[in-house]
Amino acid sequence: MKTDTIAAIATAMADSGIGIVRISGEEAIEIADRMFRTKSGKRILREVVSHTINYGYIVDNSSGEKNDVDEGYLKESNIVDEVMVGVMKSPGSYTTEDTVEINCHGGVLMMNRILELVIKNGARIAEPGEFTKRAFLNGRIDLSKAEAVIDIIHSKNQFALKSSVSQLKGSVSEVVKGLRQELIYEIAFIESALDDPEHISLEGYGERLYEKTDNIISKLKKLLDSADNGMMLKEGINTVIVGKPNAGKSSLLNLLVGEEKAIVTDVAGTTRDVLEESIKLHGISLNIIDTAGIRYTEDVVEKIGVERAIKYASSADLVIFVVDASLPLDESDNHIIQMIAGKKTIILLNKTDLDEVTTEDILSAEIRAVDKAVDASHIRIIKTSTKENIGIDLLEKAIKDMFFQGEISFNDEVFITNMRHKEAIMNAYEDMLQVRRSLEDGMPEDFYSIDLMSSYSSLGTIIGEEVGEDLVNEIFSKFCMGK
Amino acid sequence: MKTDTIAAIATAMADSGIGIVRISGEEAIEIADRMFRTKSGKRILREVVSHTINYGYIVDNSSGEKNDVDEGYLKESNIVDEVMVGVMKSPGSYTTEDTVEINCHGGVLMMNRILELVIKNGARIAEPGEFTKRAFLNGRIDLSKAEAVIDIIHSKNQFALKSSVSQLKGSVSEVVKGLRQELIYEIAFIESALDDPEHISLEGYGERLYEKTDNIISKLKKLLDSADNGMMLKEGINTVIVGKPNAGKSSLLNLLVGEEKAIVTDVAGTTRDVLEESIKLHGISLNIIDTAGIRYTEDVVEKIGVERAIKYASSADLVIFVVDASLPLDESDNHIIQMIAGKKTIILLNKTDLDEVTTEDILSAEIRAVDKAVDASHIRIIKTSTKENIGIDLLEKAIKDMFFQGEISFNDEVFITNMRHKEAIMNAYEDMLQVRRSLEDGMPEDFYSIDLMSSYSSLGTIIGEEVGEDLVNEIFSKFCMGK
Repeated sequence: MKTDTIAAIATAMADSGIGIVRISGEEAIEIADRMFRTKSGKRILREVVSHTINYGYIVDNSSGEKNDVDEGYLKESNIVDEVMVGVMKSPGSYTTEDTVEINCHGGVLMMNRILELVIKNGARIAEPGEFTKRAFLNGRIDLSKAEAVIDIIHSKNQFALKSSVSQLKGSVSEVVKGLRQELIYEIAFIESALDDPEHISLEGYGERLYEKTDNIISKLKKLLDSADNGMMLKEGINTVIVGKPNAGKSSLLNLLVGEEKAIVTDVAGTTRDVLEESIKLHGISLNIIDTAGIRYTEDVVEKIGVERAIKYASSADLVIFVVDASLPLDESDNHIIQMIAGKKTIILLNKTDLDEVTTEDILSAEIRAVDKAVDASHIRIIKTSTKENIGIDLLEKAIKDMFFQGEISFNDEVFITNMRHKEAIMNAYEDMLQVRRSLEDGMPEDFYSIDLMSSYSSLGTIIGEEVGEDLVNEIFSKFCMGK
Repeated sequence: MKTDTIAAIATAMADSGIGIVRISGEEAIEIADRMFRTKSGKRILREVVSHTINYGYIVDNSSGEKNDVDEGYLKESNIVDEVMVGVMKSPGSYTTEDTVEINCHGGVLMMNRILELVIKNGARIAEPGEFTKRAFLNGRIDLSKAEAVIDIIHSKNQFALKSSVSQLKGSVSEVVKGLRQELIYEIAFIESALDDPEHISLEGYGERLYEKTDNIISKLKKLLDSADNGMMLKEGINTVIVGKPNAGKSSLLNLLVGEEKAIVTDVAGTTRDVLEESIKLHGISLNIIDTAGIRYTEDVVEKIGVERAIKYASSADLVIFVVDASLPLDESDNHIIQMIAGKKTIILLNKTDLDEVTTEDILSAEIRAVDKAVDASHIRIIKTSTKENIGIDLLEKAIKDMFFQGEISFNDEVFITNMRHKEAIMNAYEDMLQVRRSLEDGMPEDFYSIDLMSSYSSLGTIIGEEVGEDLVNEIFSKFCMGK
């Protein structure tokens, strides 16, 4: 298929050291060649080897004077910028098409000027995500990998980054392809047996398939579970910090934010845009909900304060309850204990640098008194001293334990972090539940083979098989320019 | 001289398609090699040819496990990003040092993550402008060329872009070097003659030098003149639009802004940051000063309105006076005519689509009546119709005529656009005036040879000779990160 040649600025549109204008398509090299001269005025781009970086000038040849397009002639006044031009020939490029990347001075005006010249020379402005869309349409990457690209770019934390890179590398695709292979094997077997009952017997097949179905269901269930954690990890765990005044809430927040700030400073101090109000604990984001308004004054304890806290806490993934261990538990603490019943909660017995009045035992007894059926896995108690920065590492560990049964597996586990993928898996999962029911009800083979096929198709949408043009366009429209 | 290896993010710090982490120094390739693996797990960067683009993965080898640094082993969980790595070996790089550019996914978090790994592997964070500073200290470019780099990046308009590129190409350096050569020849001649009077005669030398001095003075004067225009072109011409209500001021502004907006839309619509409140007319910026507050109400004409207009106009480079040609001139117009006396002014006889009441002759007569000694070169009259978009091209031409004696010479003329350069030229110019006075006063040779030397030194500071470390540091501190 002949495609037109597209171009866009691939770096961010702000003044900076280097800017990249990217061109992809059949005429990419020809277009760049018209605009590029070596220091001695030669046109070389059509002859260079793939994956080379070429130093020279971008020239404005739009005057149309013959001299301007001649080889071996470099008109000083036509020079637009001093550049490095990377040439990647088909199929060894991002899009699999001939691709040229002009690395120019990173001024907004300069990047626009060069893009304008590229357009004048025959390319058209790329749509958002069109380079990656071409990589997908040309078969270099499947849809889940393409989606990983934009997730990498917009990653909010290390987990999101890591899981998106893993997805780009094909982790999600592999799992999905594996499941589809199992499904298509069964579908094909049933079809063959129905077509050729003389040679292929379905005797006892129902039991074999039941076992297989069970197995696939549990795999899909695991992926669905990973999606809840995965999307929470990607977007951040919505967290509320509660506690009486002076229990140490602000100190905790400062401590957490302080760590955060230190990280930002490490890496050049310009990331404030994306940090928003979330706090990162080595790979996990906590979206701290501002509870500054929650104040347990003696007279209106049960009024506005608790109501608001309950509202926040009810929608939160995690409640961090800071208790002043140097004081006895009081009515305010009791109100909070009632409030957190059934919520994932980490209780910090804070101020361990002072004499301990409220011990872990006292606190546990109080919690049991409030909620006899309390689920221990929902509540962790940790001794901390925010003043002396003690116990914050335990807080982090407790979060990992609570949400990920121990260490967050950055290593092997596949996390589903994309809502579209989750929905597809949910559909596939429900189809398989239907298959299992059909088997239990002793339905005929051609009946449940439809559900097997439907499950197969649902999973296919994740990697971009059996998806319509509309969906593809919608997915790539969320991309940034130049990618 | 052994230098440490520096690294920085060279693209803008905002989520985008591609980000570049740049490394320069003796260990650049070694550091990148530790972090980079091909798809098959190989470490190849130490062996690759210069100016090649290499596809593979950035890995986090910081666990220190032996496997992590082995060749031929790629641990899935260590993969940080899929990248293209450009390798440019010394001396054929920007800094002349070994340089590696890691083109990664352009997410802020990803760029920071990779920079962090580069630092862990032995580089240090570069200071702003340090790459260009090294290009200067290593002798690849002189100081005026280095300064051009940052001017290109921050260019506000096509003229600034063009003159900065020309400066980067060496236009300023060449002029300066030419002048210095002339000066050093004379200095050397005088020194030789004083050292060896038997063989070298200074007979009649004074007259020869006088002629030479005159010639150099006029060249320096021309550069100084170019500096006024050059800096105005670079920064924009400060312009005030005045005129009675309904004369067409707003229409003019809209028309100018409209053209501007069209240009912006052409090139992706994200340049608003740098446009500020300036308007571009094909290469010239007009910094339009908001005169919304200037209103000629009938009763307070001579009060606040005119006062403010006078204040604005007095500091402006250019006044555009919009006259409603379909009405007779009135008191308000007369007040403005008084106000613009001696200012560079373009008068637009607007509304030519209607019947002409105030003609060019009437207007000229009125102006002469106010200011008999009016300098015609200061005032141009143009017929326009902002309603029908007629005459705007003439306005642009008039500006060029007025400020640049015709076409803005983007082609050959060297413009001084840097205040530091202007000051150096001013010093050199004053030294030469002193030389001429000494010659006129018949002073001895060794007397004015000091001034020749001083002039030579002043010009040297432009290209970075005879400049102290402090000045160099100050210049590069204005650079952006990663350049």
